[in-house]
Amino acid sequence: MLSYNPKTTEELENWVFSEVRFDPLALGKCEAIMSLGNGYMGLRSATEEPYIGEKRNLFVNGTFNKFDEFEVSELPNAADLTKLDIRIDGRRLSLEVGTVTVYERRLNLRDAELVRCFVWEHSGKKIGFVFRRFVSLDHLHQIGFRVEIRLLAGGANLSISSGIDGQVTNSGSQHFHEGEKRIYDKTYLELIQTTTESKIDFVLGAVHELKVNGHKAEIAPKMDIDRRRVGVTYTLDLAEGDTLVFEKLATVYTSRDKEFPEGTTLETIRQTALKTLKEMRLAGYDELFRRHRAAWSAVWERYNFSIKSASSFDLLALRFAIYHLVAMTPAHDHRMGIGAKGLSGEGYKGHSFWDTEIFILPFYIYSNPAIARSLLEYRYLGLEGARAKARDNGYAGAMYPWEAAWPSDGEVTPVWGAVDVVTGEQTKIWSGFIEQHITSDIAYAVWHYYQATGDRDFMNRCGFEMIFDTATFWASRLEWDEAEQRYEINDVVGPDEYKEHIDNNAFTNYMAHFNIELAKQYYYALQEEDMELFQRLNAKLNLEQAISEWETKGGLIYLPQPNREGIIPQDDTYLLKKQIDLTPYKRQARVGSIFDDYNLDQVGEMQISKQADVLMLFFLLEDRFRPDVKKANYDYYEEKTLHDSSLSMSTHCILANDLGDRTLAYELFRRAAEIDLGPYMHSSDAGIHSASLGGVWECVVMGFAGVRMLGGELHLNPRLPQQWEELSFPLYWQGRRLEIVLDHSNLHIRTEEPGEMELLVHGQRIRFNQELQYRYQTY
Amino acid sequence: MLSYNPKTTEELENWVFSEVRFDPLALGKCEAIMSLGNGYMGLRSATEEPYIGEKRNLFVNGTFNKFDEFEVSELPNAADLTKLDIRIDGRRLSLEVGTVTVYERRLNLRDAELVRCFVWEHSGKKIGFVFRRFVSLDHLHQIGFRVEIRLLAGGANLSISSGIDGQVTNSGSQHFHEGEKRIYDKTYLELIQTTTESKIDFVLGAVHELKVNGHKAEIAPKMDIDRRRVGVTYTLDLAEGDTLVFEKLATVYTSRDKEFPEGTTLETIRQTALKTLKEMRLAGYDELFRRHRAAWSAVWERYNFSIKSASSFDLLALRFAIYHLVAMTPAHDHRMGIGAKGLSGEGYKGHSFWDTEIFILPFYIYSNPAIARSLLEYRYLGLEGARAKARDNGYAGAMYPWEAAWPSDGEVTPVWGAVDVVTGEQTKIWSGFIEQHITSDIAYAVWHYYQATGDRDFMNRCGFEMIFDTATFWASRLEWDEAEQRYEINDVVGPDEYKEHIDNNAFTNYMAHFNIELAKQYYYALQEEDMELFQRLNAKLNLEQAISEWETKGGLIYLPQPNREGIIPQDDTYLLKKQIDLTPYKRQARVGSIFDDYNLDQVGEMQISKQADVLMLFFLLEDRFRPDVKKANYDYYEEKTLHDSSLSMSTHCILANDLGDRTLAYELFRRAAEIDLGPYMHSSDAGIHSASLGGVWECVVMGFAGVRMLGGELHLNPRLPQQWEELSFPLYWQGRRLEIVLDHSNLHIRTEEPGEMELLVHGQRIRFNQELQYRYQTY
Repeated sequence: MLSYNPKTTEELENWVFSEVRFDPLALGKCEAIMSLGNGYMGLRSATEEPYIGEKRNLFVNGTFNKFDEFEVSELPNAADLTKLDIRIDGRRLSLEVGTVTVYERRLNLRDAELVRCFVWEHSGKKIGFVFRRFVSLDHLHQIGFRVEIRLLAGGANLSISSGIDGQVTNSGSQHFHEGEKRIYDKTYLELIQTTTESKIDFVLGAVHELKVNGHKAEIAPKMDIDRRRVGVTYTLDLAEGDTLVFEKLATVYTSRDKEFPEGTTLETIRQTALKTLKEMRLAGYDELFRRHRAAWSAVWERYNFSIKSASSFDLLALRFAIYHLVAMTPAHDHRMGIGAKGLSGEGYKGHSFWDTEIFILPFYIYSNPAIARSLLEYRYLGLEGARAKARDNGYAGAMYPWEAAWPSDGEVTPVWGAVDVVTGEQTKIWSGFIEQHITSDIAYAVWHYYQATGDRDFMNRCGFEMIFDTATFWASRLEWDEAEQRYEINDVVGPDEYKEHIDNNAFTNYMAHFNIELAKQYYYALQEEDMELFQRLNAKLNLEQAISEWETKGGLIYLPQPNREGIIPQDDTYLLKKQIDLTPYKRQARVGSIFDDYNLDQVGEMQISKQADVLMLFFLLEDRFRPDVKKANYDYYEEKTLHDSSLSMSTHCILANDLGDRTLAYELFRRAAEIDLGPYMHSSDAGIHSASLGGVWECVVMGFAGVRMLGGELHLNPRLPQQWEELSFPLYWQGRRLEIVLDHSNLHIRTEEPGEMELLVHGQRIRFNQELQYRYQTY
Repeated sequence: MLSYNPKTTEELENWVFSEVRFDPLALGKCEAIMSLGNGYMGLRSATEEPYIGEKRNLFVNGTFNKFDEFEVSELPNAADLTKLDIRIDGRRLSLEVGTVTVYERRLNLRDAELVRCFVWEHSGKKIGFVFRRFVSLDHLHQIGFRVEIRLLAGGANLSISSGIDGQVTNSGSQHFHEGEKRIYDKTYLELIQTTTESKIDFVLGAVHELKVNGHKAEIAPKMDIDRRRVGVTYTLDLAEGDTLVFEKLATVYTSRDKEFPEGTTLETIRQTALKTLKEMRLAGYDELFRRHRAAWSAVWERYNFSIKSASSFDLLALRFAIYHLVAMTPAHDHRMGIGAKGLSGEGYKGHSFWDTEIFILPFYIYSNPAIARSLLEYRYLGLEGARAKARDNGYAGAMYPWEAAWPSDGEVTPVWGAVDVVTGEQTKIWSGFIEQHITSDIAYAVWHYYQATGDRDFMNRCGFEMIFDTATFWASRLEWDEAEQRYEINDVVGPDEYKEHIDNNAFTNYMAHFNIELAKQYYYALQEEDMELFQRLNAKLNLEQAISEWETKGGLIYLPQPNREGIIPQDDTYLLKKQIDLTPYKRQARVGSIFDDYNLDQVGEMQISKQADVLMLFFLLEDRFRPDVKKANYDYYEEKTLHDSSLSMSTHCILANDLGDRTLAYELFRRAAEIDLGPYMHSSDAGIHSASLGGVWECVVMGFAGVRMLGGELHLNPRLPQQWEELSFPLYWQGRRLEIVLDHSNLHIRTEEPGEMELLVHGQRIRFNQELQYRYQTY
């Protein structure tokens, strides 16, 4: 049971949410939504004491490994540092037994600290516990744990077993060789594990400090080295009133870390790790936490969003989204992308999807362009895998993988999914083979980034090459229809994954067309603007041959047009399919309930959409479609969309807001925010929903504030929810940071960078220098 | 808390032991000692509902796999069939919460059925549970589970999730590819997993049947296919007074099974499995169990031991030993050996040690010679690995691995063990390199088997070759000491593993000498008796060259002689080492307590023995040593022996009995029996102690009944414990089955096979035909 904005200091308002009752059947929820991370690594928030059904996960970004030839690369679950076996008079601490009072587990988003406290009564003893932990944003390799145990009634013999446990797996797949285990000076624990295929060394360290009533307790631990595990057990007697503070400080390093250049020896990494561990021991939890908090303060200064709403949940939800985006994003290393579940669970194996470019990247483009660039550079490095995929499939250019891991891995989408209720066999996942729009989504993102930032350096180094080579892929992918005298794209999956093997998915065709047209445009522009670069790229990509393909085919791509009712067919057959009453499934408490009754083949034969498809197209290529067409399609498709993908809600929210359905828009924003933060107990078991979190920001900034980039210009079309009084947010545009504040009729923009700026507000072109106060008609 | 011979029917007296109080901190004990098996597979007895700290293990004999190049082959833990997630009104059944009454978990040794029953009260509901299961001895691929749930007070919504769970590992090492998962007809679950290196296919199946109040309940389950897992959930409402019977019937097949010859397709195995599963479903638990019980009846008719003792524990303990020996022994397949923990836990990885030949084989030689032969044939097949090991180490002949897995694997002893308390590093395990006596132990066992059975066919096919090639190893292993003008064996570990890198371990030297002398004897005998075989073996092993080595070196092997006090030095330096007061360690509740204070290097520098060493030599080569020498050495070494190996107690028991210390002998028998069956809660966590179980039989038959083979003749020197009134047991000798009954002064022997027989009782030569009644002086 969650509580949002529980009673706390005023300073922490809209920064905190809590679990207020322990539920052993819903561990996954808090493990994921309260997970900690610093972009380098993510630590799922399993409780210290173990429970049936828990998942202990520690992921280090970019450390992909492949278990065997039948599996795909995934982020391996590193050895566990979180578990403590705490025994009171020989009995294992467990909240499933005894009496638990004053229970609270809270995540403080401002400080990125997880705190759990309760009083446990058992066998006549009454003991207070406070657990704290953080994953340092100040020092990316550090984790701190602190346990305070106070004997409120009765003395007790206490033992705590702690250590580094490499027996964990990814749901059974073990990615590591056993490796070395060692305890230095009976104090510093070390476990080294190397991934089996990618041969990445992980060096994990831990050290413990105990204080009783404020004084350091010198207790020699019992040491234990077991299979894949190293541990220590501290045992001591405490009297009534005594307080034990148990600190566990841990380090995580890997040979993939950027600071260790190719050829660094394992010994160097070990020494670095041990040095850090020793420094941490000297500093102690409180000092390390102070540094971590300061790093987060700087983050929140940059992302200084504010919402004045009738519901305090709204700002909390936005901060929750940004908190997790920071925790999951490898801002430190452009060789890495963002996983669909961030670093908070095994779901989607740490792979990057179009989620990054379409749902998350806008946040970074407009809030932290340097990170947006880093994420696009990851895709630039991914050209290697994309070209291999194109070759393997008989195409030219760069065909991006539907799921991406390490840049050179290429396609890593698994082939088999959930059970088919009809056949009892596993369902084949076709996305890795035929969900191809990802390639134009990435080209689109490059263009979007460039338009909003003007970062020509990135374009010269990476962007143009990406756009050219993706266009070349599409040109080779197109299929000529002699009868219709047009190019088609057949046998694909579009964004709506409930329709497989369809022909001429509107989204796919339009985006492929956009991709080729963009390449043409840049081809000629580059010849004008930068002949040297043009020639370099021409030598590499054979542009002069490519342009003739683009020119010949681009204009002949079949772009499905609105029918008499104004409906753009999602694909060649969608509109011919059976319609059924979807009411029961639209009211579902968990996604995918339709599959309790139908299998994917059957759903494929009905007008049922998993998520936004044609509507997504309207959002990306906004100025290509008339408002009445948008409205007609919105009305048509919305009722057929189950929102079984977490990517769906924010798009519909933005479209609804554009079309003036503000009640539904606000509702969809709330539903998007509730995917993780809401009361559904199992929606986040496999990890939080990265794209949906980006979508929450999109609802706020691109939806309610109406921020858009159109034709290279910045547009604002503010239309706040009636529940909101004021919204303020930072926005980067062409290298300038704007501080924007708006309510239902006023817009205020301020920037420290001097110089004239131009933007359109509700279509009105406005120029200002450093500060704008603008009043518009209340909607 | 265990109860031996709990109140039950008279018929089941001495057949049953129980856990009478559930202890969540001591799960391993009952999991191991109540484990089920049929020689083909072993199923650890984890409870259906999960608990923290449990170990779910299913091992199929002989299916070894190597996780990676740094680990050794081990028996992989196959997918779990035992776990059920049972929920009452949404709450998970757990005996850690609510009120539990009438609790009993019992293993019925006669029927080899595990039964667990209790009444669980929670939230006003009162529910009775009875769980039953068996691993069929009638059909080696079948397992049956039956759960009876009776709503004693209050109705409830009940759900049971069951399936096949391949997420289990060997303490983190995953030995299987993910494999295929399928549900046929929404009814038959199938999981296929293939080992990663040895490429053995496992085909696991399960089917469920539900009855409410005796009537079949047709409930469509919710199906679930997850990573490495396939499952179903049945949900139903029950009213007060209703009884649900839930049966789960399961099949286990592998491509290593003898019935599937090389080249059998996976499809054939699947069809075989599915056919069995369908037949099981038709038969139902009760009928399948009836067949299983009949198979065990036949076993107990063969092993019809009886002890009339003041303590009913004694017969129960002997039956417990035999039960587990049957459960672990691959009587069906001579390509497999016996694991040091049987099939009841991950300990020792399913490997075979000298435990088989020295501690277990005697039971089979004298109780079931066909199985003894099968076990020796396993070693014959192991010549391949033994020759490879000799070559790798620069020796000739066959050097048996200290730990053996699949016959061709060769040495599989892991290299690293527990933590060193002084350095904090892992201790190196030297046994795989230098614990070499295993080679002569196996030669000894061949000889012992041949002497007792007269099985010349085995000798011709296997035995002679084993004896010759092991002798050749020893001849190449000996080191010439020029100063002493003798052959020595230096840098070894003897049976006492607390002394590493020692020279001239008495046990090793005497046994090597025995091995070479035996080869010489058979060399000349074969030339006389079977020239054709001799020539065949000569062609293969170059015996004519070997004999000159044996002749030259055999007589010059240094055999340590008793010193002035009559003590045979265990090795060159043992007697020079420091002595300390071992009283605290000899009283230890768990083995290895000495390592809390010293590391192995330090223990190595003191007169401390882990287990019998010189005394073991007296037991094996009984007629080579004078009684006064035995007595002197017994007195000297016993007090220095910590019995930290489960192999130690039975040898000391037998020696003590021989030497007339009957009180100590009986005490050591009890201690041997209590290693697994006693009250120590963690001694069996990693699995039961196979050798110790064989040792229990040795105490009874070779100790108290004084059965020995000396010079090819059968000796009986009965000397029953004072607590015993009568002992009866079967004994095979030279193809005859003898039924022996004895008390403190009478011996009665009966056999169905006609013909004169000769044996020695307390040294008196006796001849009889079919029946002997003999009276001797009471001791």
